[in-house]
Order: sequence, then structure tokens, then C-alpha cells
Amino acid sequence: MKITEQQLRAFTHEVFKSIGCPDADAALAADVLLSADLRGIDSHGVARLSGYVRLWENGRLNPTPSIRVAHETPTTATLDGDRGLGLVVAPYAMDIALEKARQYGSGWVAIRNSNHFGIAAYHALKAVQHDMIGYAMTNASPLVAPTFSSERLLGTNPVCYAFPAGQYPPVVVDMATSAAANGKLEIAQRMNVPIPEGWALTPDGKPTTDPNAVTAGGALLPLGSEYGRGSHKGFALSATVDILSGVLSGANYGPWVPPFVAYLQPLADQPGQGIGHFVGAMRVDGFRPVAEFKIHIDQWITRFKNARRVNPEQGVIIPGEPEYQAMHQRKKQGIPLAGKVVESLEALGSKFGIALPATIR
Amino acid sequence: MKITEQQLRAFTHEVFKSIGCPDADAALAADVLLSADLRGIDSHGVARLSGYVRLWENGRLNPTPSIRVAHETPTTATLDGDRGLGLVVAPYAMDIALEKARQYGSGWVAIRNSNHFGIAAYHALKAVQHDMIGYAMTNASPLVAPTFSSERLLGTNPVCYAFPAGQYPPVVVDMATSAAANGKLEIAQRMNVPIPEGWALTPDGKPTTDPNAVTAGGALLPLGSEYGRGSHKGFALSATVDILSGVLSGANYGPWVPPFVAYLQPLADQPGQGIGHFVGAMRVDGFRPVAEFKIHIDQWITRFKNARRVNPEQGVIIPGEPEYQAMHQRKKQGIPLAGKVVESLEALGSKFGIALPATIR
Repeated sequence: MKITEQQLRAFTHEVFKSIGCPDADAALAADVLLSADLRGIDSHGVARLSGYVRLWENGRLNPTPSIRVAHETPTTATLDGDRGLGLVVAPYAMDIALEKARQYGSGWVAIRNSNHFGIAAYHALKAVQHDMIGYAMTNASPLVAPTFSSERLLGTNPVCYAFPAGQYPPVVVDMATSAAANGKLEIAQRMNVPIPEGWALTPDGKPTTDPNAVTAGGALLPLGSEYGRGSHKGFALSATVDILSGVLSGANYGPWVPPFVAYLQPLADQPGQGIGHFVGAMRVDGFRPVAEFKIHIDQWITRFKNARRVNPEQGVIIPGEPEYQAMHQRKKQGIPLAGKVVESLEALGSKFGIALPATIR
Repeated sequence: MKITEQQLRAFTHEVFKSIGCPDADAALAADVLLSADLRGIDSHGVARLSGYVRLWENGRLNPTPSIRVAHETPTTATLDGDRGLGLVVAPYAMDIALEKARQYGSGWVAIRNSNHFGIAAYHALKAVQHDMIGYAMTNASPLVAPTFSSERLLGTNPVCYAFPAGQYPPVVVDMATSAAANGKLEIAQRMNVPIPEGWALTPDGKPTTDPNAVTAGGALLPLGSEYGRGSHKGFALSATVDILSGVLSGANYGPWVPPFVAYLQPLADQPGQGIGHFVGAMRVDGFRPVAEFKIHIDQWITRFKNARRVNPEQGVIIPGEPEYQAMHQRKKQGIPLAGKVVESLEALGSKFGIALPATIR
């Protein structure tokens, strides 16, 4: 089932307005979700729309937040998101970082008291439009066990770097710091197929290929999968994201990060407020002229695209390239939606009296 | 064979003076190498001293560089290292970053025309002394193949984040972005034992446990080891280090990064100058009061140290903890040196007429 970008955007916009978001915020939140669907990150687009609505229904989401700067220097700030949508709070934070970078060369904003912010790439790419390097990360519901533990203490804690290029699309590194994102596990669950080794542990800490292991109380593994292959590095990266997003901002961290799914209650005795993000921007021309940088990043991309292949059919993939291709295609051909996602959108449409286009029913 | 910190420091200081480094630079370079030996990173300490000397003998190292700022904004700069020791150029760069952070909240310096800078942690930890968050990375001799390729296009490209703590030692994430650092391969070579799966490829791109595979023309693998386990993420991280260190600064990048070993010639048609680093610092109190941050990072550390264990004998290791313990021990008990390292130091001592303490002969 496919839907055009415009149709899906209009529907999503109306849903956010229905939970009380001001019109501009609803449009922005829809833009962030649509960017995931356009870029082929189906797990982070409108598939999560009903999740945001449930957070609102449970009183954990403030649709009209008073976002405020809690702390500031010329190039740093901490933002209190007032329990708003991360989809709105994070772009607000990135605008502050961009303004600081415009004035001083770089800008960095830690965010607390927020909620899920969609794909990290959306936020980092805002910097690229201004010939800056963008940086975005967030902590998330605990699902990942540190090396030598079987306890879920970290989210899949994604980190994103985005670099402008010349002839090529931007280089966009946007990755969960776990071996696999939770969305990949959900796909295996739906298809009822085993997951690869190195993704997950059973509740008692044994390696498993059972797609239901995490749902049953197990844990995802950090990037690297096991100690002998460097999983302590994946753990350390995830820890970095948690410290910058949570500890530095005054948000929650580790096991206290509130779960995205509204049926799970946040832990008691929270050490901070909401979930945390961290975003930043640096002007390319704070280091060298933009034109020079673009010549060299293009040469970097060309060289890596032409790397000797192990399998003649599969070349090196430049970070961000598949998402760019998906966006190009989906803008023209429409966005495919899984049956379950259509059902969840129909339920939202009924709840709020918003019509979905007849073509996808 | 053991040697005291003071003895090894004095010897190393004299060797750097013997190749023409000014006294203060020689002391600084010795301090950076000693910090590796003290922290238990034996591959990056005096074991490399003869390597730096050979670079000087080959005319690739300038012992009296005119380090200069090539480009600057209030919070960013690009430094030209004038072919100096990275051990001297990188601390110079970090001092600029710290001064910018003192004034504006954060500071970021890209470095070109440099050489190997020792351990990234040394540079990042300079920020921690001032209650700042430190950031340091470098590109390096090409040894790692991107996902889907068998060609060595990236170095082990380490990245380091260092965070101050309260009751605990600093949290120090200092990691090669490959599955294993090259030093671990060298140890397996010396012992003639197989390496774990997931570390390396044969020259034709097949997985291998042969410790000599990389020397024979194969390649190291990125963190994640294989595509199914997320090696494209390790590749993307390594690419990020290469772009920030090389493309942004005007240094070389990818396969053009000059090899550390002097018997390998740099490629022709270099797109930049020398190797590149990137360092930065952010004031903790640019985001929240330092005392508050320290309370929460201590709580973070305590919670992770107490995580449920898979094996009762092995708890979660906080990033930087083993290096801190090694430092504590080696400062008291001396630094152990492998036989081959002692031989290489004796050869340097003969060359320059510097006596090694009789106790280690």
C-alpha cells in the first residue's frame, strides 16, 4: 500500500493538531516523521505516530511546552523541553546551535525533559543546509546490556554526524550504537525468522538467535556483539551518548530513561527529567574554505566508492547514500506502508475524525 | 624487565633531544609516550620511540616545527603542524581548544601536517583537568577495509571522549574504530597464535584467523566485523574520524595517509599534508554546574558497576577504569617492558650515547 508524501504529511499534521499541538509545531513534527518515511527508515516515521499519541493520552507528553534555555554560554546551552515532543524540541535546540555557530564558529545544545526525537539525521542535516557539520544524538528506552552484563541499561542510543559534500549528497552517519536497531528485531519477530548471532542475549545472558528474546526479558547487544570482537567499544559509544544526552543535560540516563511505549511506567526515583538529546553544529569555513572542503570530500567519496570489492555485485556504501536514494524514489513514487501501520493510522483517523486517502484503505 | 617511570621518562626525553627537539618539546613528547606506558597501552608508548626516530632519519619529521594557526574563528581553528611530532603538535592544538573553551564555552581544532600523536586519551584528558569534556581523534596509516571491500583504506582511526567524575576517576572512552587494534594482532603474531574471528580479512577478502593476514596484504575489519553484525557502523565511525581529521584540516585522508613505519613510502599525488587530528573541549559548566554533573556521573558509574553480571567473576568495566588502575600500579611498581622493546631502546641508547639504567640490561 502506497501513499504520497503530501497525503501522509497532511494526515500526520492533523493528528498532531488533534492532540493539541499548535499548527506550526504540528507541521514541524510531521516534517520530522515524514523525513524518516522518505529516507526509508520506516521504523521511525508514521509507524510511531500512535506511540506519540499514547504518550499524550498517558499525560507524559505536553503538546504546548514552554521550551526554555536553562543555562547558556556563547557556544553552549542547556534546553528544558517541558515534556514536549522531541520532534519539536530538538529542532528548536538545533536552531540555537546554528545561531551560535553562525556567530562563534560552533554551537552545542544539551536537551532535557524531552521525548523521542525521531531520526537523528533530521536534526544533523539542518546544519548541512548552512554548510556546517551537524551532530545529533539521543538516549532512549533501556534495551541494551553493557559488555559482561545481561541487564538492559542503555538505549540503542543513536549518534549522527552529517557532512556537506559537493557533487554528491551529504555524508550522513546515522547509527544505533547497538549491533542492530530494535526495528530490525521487530521485523524478524513479525516474519518469525531467527535473528543473526551477535544481536541479542537471553534473559540469563546467553547468546541467542530467538527474535523474541528481548521481548521475553533479554537484551540487545552493543555494536561489536561480544568482548572478543570489541563490544566494549560499542558499550563505550553508547555510554558517551547517554552521558552527553542525559548526565550533561539533567535528563534521565541509563535504566531511568523513560520508555517510549506508554504501557511501561518510568522507574521511580528518577535522577533527571524526561529523555535527553545532544545536538551541535560547526561551520566548515571555521576550518577551511567551503569550496576546498567540498572538493576533498568529493574526492574522499569517489575513492571509497571505487574501492576493490569482495563481491563484484556489491560496492562500498557511502554513509547516507541508501537513504538519499530512498528519498529520491519515494518523493516520486510514494511511500509504502505496512498493513499494520495502515491499521494504526486508520485507528487514529477514526479517533480524531481525520480521513485517510481512499487509495490506501 | 621493569623500569621506573622517572628512569624511562629521562631516557625518552634525552632521545627526543638527540633528534633535535627543543628541551620543552622533548619533555612533552616523553610525557605523552610515558602516559601510554603508565596507562598500560604498551603498543603506544616507548615501544614506538624507535619508529619516531626512523621517521626523523627519513626526513619525514621536523624536530623544530613552526606550528601555526592557518584559519580561525572564536571557537574553531586549523593548525599546520609543519611536519612536527604529533606528540608536540596535538598538545599545542589542545591548548588552543582549551583557551577558546575558557572564553566561549567550547573550542575545536583540526590539525594537518602532523605525525602520529600517541594515545588519544592524553589529549582528551587535558580538558578534564579543567572540568571540561575532552575530545580527540586522529587518522592513521591505512590498514582497515570498509564493509564490502578488502582494500586498506582507513587507519584504526581512534576516537576519545573524556569526562570528569567526582569520587571516581574520569570516564575515558579511547578506542580504535576497528574490531581490534593493530597492537593486538602484533601480539598474536609474536606468540604465533590464531586471532579471533572477526578481526581480519585475507588479501582476497575472506575471513581469517591467521595472525599474519594483514602483514601478508590483508586488512583489519571495522568494529562490528561483518555487515550482518553492523560493520558498516564501524566503517562509518572510522570515516567520521578520517573526515574530521583529514578532510576538514587539509591533511591526507583514506589511503593517502602516510604510513607510520618509515620503510613504507607515502603514496604519490597526496591530496593534503601529513596526517590529521581533531581535538576539542567543552566546559561542563557551559551546560550545568560542575558539582551537579559530578554527582550524576558518579551515580551513572555506580549503577553500571552494579549491573547484573553474566559471569559472577566479571563485572561491567567502566571506560577508562583499567587504564587508571594500571597507572596507579605502574607509578608505584614500575613499568614492565617486553624484551624486544628493551632491545630497541638499547639500540637508541647506543646510537645517541644515552645510558639506560643498568637494572633493565
